[in-house]
Amino acid sequence: MAPQYAPSLRSRFPLVTFLLETIFILLFVFFVKIEQHEQRESDSKLFIRSYAEFQDIHVMIFMGFGFLATFLVRYGFSGSGFNMLLAAMAIQWAVLMNGFLLPQRHHRREIYISMKSVIEAELCAASALVAMGAVHGKINPVQLLLMALVEVTGFVINQWILRTLLHADPLYSIMMLHIFGALFGVMVSWVLHREGINPKHEKERIDRSTGLFAMFGTLFLWMFWPSFNSALVSHRERELKLTVIYGTYLSLAVSVVMAMSVSMLTSSKGKMNMVHIQSSALSGGVAIGVAMTAVHAPWIAMTIGFCAALLSALGFQYMKDHMLFAFECHDTCGVLNVHAIPGILGWFAHLFIRLASTESTIAVRFAVYHICVLLITVCMSLVMGTATGLLLKWSIWRPQQDRKCFDDQAFWEFPNLVVHV
Amino acid sequence: MAPQYAPSLRSRFPLVTFLLETIFILLFVFFVKIEQHEQRESDSKLFIRSYAEFQDIHVMIFMGFGFLATFLVRYGFSGSGFNMLLAAMAIQWAVLMNGFLLPQRHHRREIYISMKSVIEAELCAASALVAMGAVHGKINPVQLLLMALVEVTGFVINQWILRTLLHADPLYSIMMLHIFGALFGVMVSWVLHREGINPKHEKERIDRSTGLFAMFGTLFLWMFWPSFNSALVSHRERELKLTVIYGTYLSLAVSVVMAMSVSMLTSSKGKMNMVHIQSSALSGGVAIGVAMTAVHAPWIAMTIGFCAALLSALGFQYMKDHMLFAFECHDTCGVLNVHAIPGILGWFAHLFIRLASTESTIAVRFAVYHICVLLITVCMSLVMGTATGLLLKWSIWRPQQDRKCFDDQAFWEFPNLVVHV
Amino acid sequence: MAPQYAPSLRSRFPLVTFLLETIFILLFVFFVKIEQHEQRESDSKLFIRSYAEFQDIHVMIFMGFGFLATFLVRYGFSGSGFNMLLAAMAIQWAVLMNGFLLPQRHHRREIYISMKSVIEAELCAASALVAMGAVHGKINPVQLLLMALVEVTGFVINQWILRTLLHADPLYSIMMLHIFGALFGVMVSWVLHREGINPKHEKERIDRSTGLFAMFGTLFLWMFWPSFNSALVSHRERELKLTVIYGTYLSLAVSVVMAMSVSMLTSSKGKMNMVHIQSSALSGGVAIGVAMTAVHAPWIAMTIGFCAALLSALGFQYMKDHMLFAFECHDTCGVLNVHAIPGILGWFAHLFIRLASTESTIAVRFAVYHICVLLITVCMSLVMGTATGLLLKWSIWRPQQDRKCFDDQAFWEFPNLVVHV
Repeated sequence: MAPQYAPSLRSRFPLVTFLLETIFILLFVFFVKIEQHEQRESDSKLFIRSYAEFQDIHVMIFMGFGFLATFLVRYGFSGSGFNMLLAAMAIQWAVLMNGFLLPQRHHRREIYISMKSVIEAELCAASALVAMGAVHGKINPVQLLLMALVEVTGFVINQWILRTLLHADPLYSIMMLHIFGALFGVMVSWVLHREGINPKHEKERIDRSTGLFAMFGTLFLWMFWPSFNSALVSHRERELKLTVIYGTYLSLAVSVVMAMSVSMLTSSKGKMNMVHIQSSALSGGVAIGVAMTAVHAPWIAMTIGFCAALLSALGFQYMKDHMLFAFECHDTCGVLNVHAIPGILGWFAHLFIRLASTESTIAVRFAVYHICVLLITVCMSLVMGTATGLLLKWSIWRPQQDRKCFDDQAFWEFPNLVVHV
Repeated sequence: MAPQYAPSLRSRFPLVTFLLETIFILLFVFFVKIEQHEQRESDSKLFIRSYAEFQDIHVMIFMGFGFLATFLVRYGFSGSGFNMLLAAMAIQWAVLMNGFLLPQRHHRREIYISMKSVIEAELCAASALVAMGAVHGKINPVQLLLMALVEVTGFVINQWILRTLLHADPLYSIMMLHIFGALFGVMVSWVLHREGINPKHEKERIDRSTGLFAMFGTLFLWMFWPSFNSALVSHRERELKLTVIYGTYLSLAVSVVMAMSVSMLTSSKGKMNMVHIQSSALSGGVAIGVAMTAVHAPWIAMTIGFCAALLSALGFQYMKDHMLFAFECHDTCGVLNVHAIPGILGWFAHLFIRLASTESTIAVRFAVYHICVLLITVCMSLVMGTATGLLLKWSIWRPQQDRKCFDDQAFWEFPNLVVHV
Repeated sequence: MAPQYAPSLRSRFPLVTFLLETIFILLFVFFVKIEQHEQRESDSKLFIRSYAEFQDIHVMIFMGFGFLATFLVRYGFSGSGFNMLLAAMAIQWAVLMNGFLLPQRHHRREIYISMKSVIEAELCAASALVAMGAVHGKINPVQLLLMALVEVTGFVINQWILRTLLHADPLYSIMMLHIFGALFGVMVSWVLHREGINPKHEKERIDRSTGLFAMFGTLFLWMFWPSFNSALVSHRERELKLTVIYGTYLSLAVSVVMAMSVSMLTSSKGKMNMVHIQSSALSGGVAIGVAMTAVHAPWIAMTIGFCAALLSALGFQYMKDHMLFAFECHDTCGVLNVHAIPGILGWFAHLFIRLASTESTIAVRFAVYHICVLLITVCMSLVMGTATGLLLKWSIWRPQQDRKCFDDQAFWEFPNLVVHV
């Protein structure tokens, strides 16, 4: 007979976090200092702007992703709690990784904490949280933590490769965070596939409250996305920054309308699906984020948002179940439809706009470069995702039983919870 | 026997949204460009400030109004979801309408997207969302969408009339958004009155969760109201801007205290009513928003907040039901008590302060002008509201049955929702 | 037989709030003006920054503290509603008290409202809200209101003593807000101890929804804490400001990880406790806030966050119940473990860092001064807390019965609430 309770992580989780935190603090002792540069008068104005942008992204990472993940009816504590845990760890690790592999200003020995480094660390954490979306509810916090740290490592290495081999713009390589994170997560989920939650786990559903909590996370992501996309655009490139802000804003406005429209159109009863809408409404932000450096007219941004929401909402309706049955790949939050597919749509849009607006020789060179960036990112994410999945399959990590998937009770005390709640 | 399910909107809603979005994108292709002006060095500082203000308003529109509308126990998905839909559509339309009728800088042919134009568009959307409050839960999303677009059109035309006929200050005409929106919505609700929800619909109530979700929206509106009121005050008029910010802050602080106080005083059991408090706490912001250009001392702002909350809380306790029985006018969110009455109170305060502080000839001229502004706004809103109500009464829009009012299940899928939740 | 309903406050609460508001408005008439200083060109840049900081703190006070207090399963309306009431009153009173006792720029007769004065008032309100945490759910709104006003008075007097007697830096004296508030609240709770809620009240528990609402408040506090700690650091001391911001950020990132880790380690079933985590995750911000002026390296901030979360989480697991049984002191939100103990830890860290980095004579002088600051603050808070407790014990305030503790139904109307919700 199977054990009634989920395996206790008391001997794993505290040990792993203690160890990792101690290592992080030791690395910070030797390598990390606070940037003195921002303290000059001339940089003060820059700091105010960056601090505001940083806060917008900070809110997206912790409130946005955290509450978006509370939609499962019995997994709200884990959704928001583990999101906070992962993001906090990923940020510390990303500050170190970015500092070692992608140093600013050529001082290799020391890492300086500045607004820029913190914003970049949060974007790396965002990539890890996207990956988490695919395996949400199916692995335990120790596995999540390891996955997040490997994902951040992989994402930073991928950026390092792009910048070293292809001399890619930092802005360009960060645009890949959605595609990298989503494919990484989907591969982990594929390797760790559980037969037991096939076709659909009884706890994999929303209710009135959790739908609203998730709406909440969605709105925070949706509202601050213009800051997210424009965060790494230098304040000196004012024209591009404004274009990105207004483009993202309009693209998102169109995509929320289309998400609702397609969700109702594809439903046999003519009703909308809250989870689909919450996810697809964000797809416009992903697509424009990947295409942004090439988009210069408001209507192009709106068209990209239109198509992204269309594709994403259709994907939710028709592809999500297909993925599960055909490829045995379960994707809890549908990151493939929210991040990967709109990301690739944005990549195509970027390519076409550039091809249409530049002369042929430069256009061909750009196309080759653009294709290489995507290929390298896709390969890296698939390979590292598979490897991570295999690592996490190890039973030493004590995964919960199928029955305890999507369930807070595996990890959280509910001492006084009455039975019927 | 009446049909068991609400009529499907599958043949209406997707078609209307597809059409409207396509038209919007086409109009954007020909008329809308991104403002180049903000890209000059000297305007950069201005942009940072405006972006922060824009975000505060953005949060108010989407989080604030969205979650304020989740208080109904079975209408949370619609409350926040349709709010997002309406606001996203209204903003796109308002950018176009404002650009055509109230052009900046005398280039009539082209509309430039700038922080100013986006902020003004969000204020127009706010006006439409106020109107939505009156009909909340009683009409379907297609009707809501049409109502929002007509409301924005009417509001912009009203502003155009005020500026053309009376040479009203733009600041002045935007102050009317509460009064215009509330009366417009109340008229629509009056025309569309349903006998079936008289005296009170069984689903028109809150529970512990939805009360907190609504608290949430209330707080976002309450906290960022100083930015809302001061958003259109030019950064060059620094004195006025500060006065508005501090005035709104103090007025709101007083009105939340008075709302609780009056709510308990007027209850026979000596208990507070959450819905009344959430609504009346905001009335101070409305009143001071209409009076703001005349208020120069903190205590006047506090007194206005005091009176606004008093009136609004009394209105909730005694007038709301009266309106329903005497005039057959049902006002779901009580916009009459939150926006119209405090707005008119602010209008009177504005008049008295000006009359008291200026000499007689100028004072009389101001009084005439001030009265005209109100009269025109009130007439426009009443006429357009009635016309819109008649348009929406058309059965082609497939309104839900009385039984399906205030109910998410008319529009949203709840595939796995267990019975007792 | 005991009466079935909680005593009505209809004859108390409206009277007290009307009276207090009228007094406040009258005091504002005679003493308070709006700062003209910020209206000069050179101060405009400063204003933008201060307004952003103010808003972060505003969000923490109203959303953060408000929703953190919604964790009790039947006390959500009171938790967020009374928080808003108390904060709004405390701010008005703190503007007056700060203006009278701690005047800016030596104009004693008039109080000027400026960003600085408003931020300081919100910090005083924060201190009162910390105190409220200890008595949360056990006293009625009239008592809460009086407690908040006395607490603000005591806190401002304490600051005045520190500045006058010890010439303490304003920054230094505000650092004491956590220690003062927590000890004040705990003393009030000790004096007002109810035998009837011993060992544990049946309503003193969370459920899935309230746990998430509280998460929400936690996250708002957690995310904006860097602004909270750095708000009073002058913009001229740029180096210190950056150090405080990054230090608080890193300290909080470590403390959330450690809070989860210790919570699981100390649980016999190896499960995490949501309430402990939400509270302990914030302890890093408290500790670094008290130590901040002495911390200059990222790793020291992280170590302080590490230790604070460790102590706080252990305190929750082992000390909270002990306090109740040994000292008959019930501390609803565990403010002793979240604010007092991490605060004292931060105080020690501050002392040790200073002693280690300065030469002996200065070090000894600093130690004496540092110890005096703590002693005065602790004595003041204990004495004033006890006195306030005795005042509130008076039956004229009509406290609710033991059975009605932690219950919204004592104060809020639930007219249509169905039985099983």
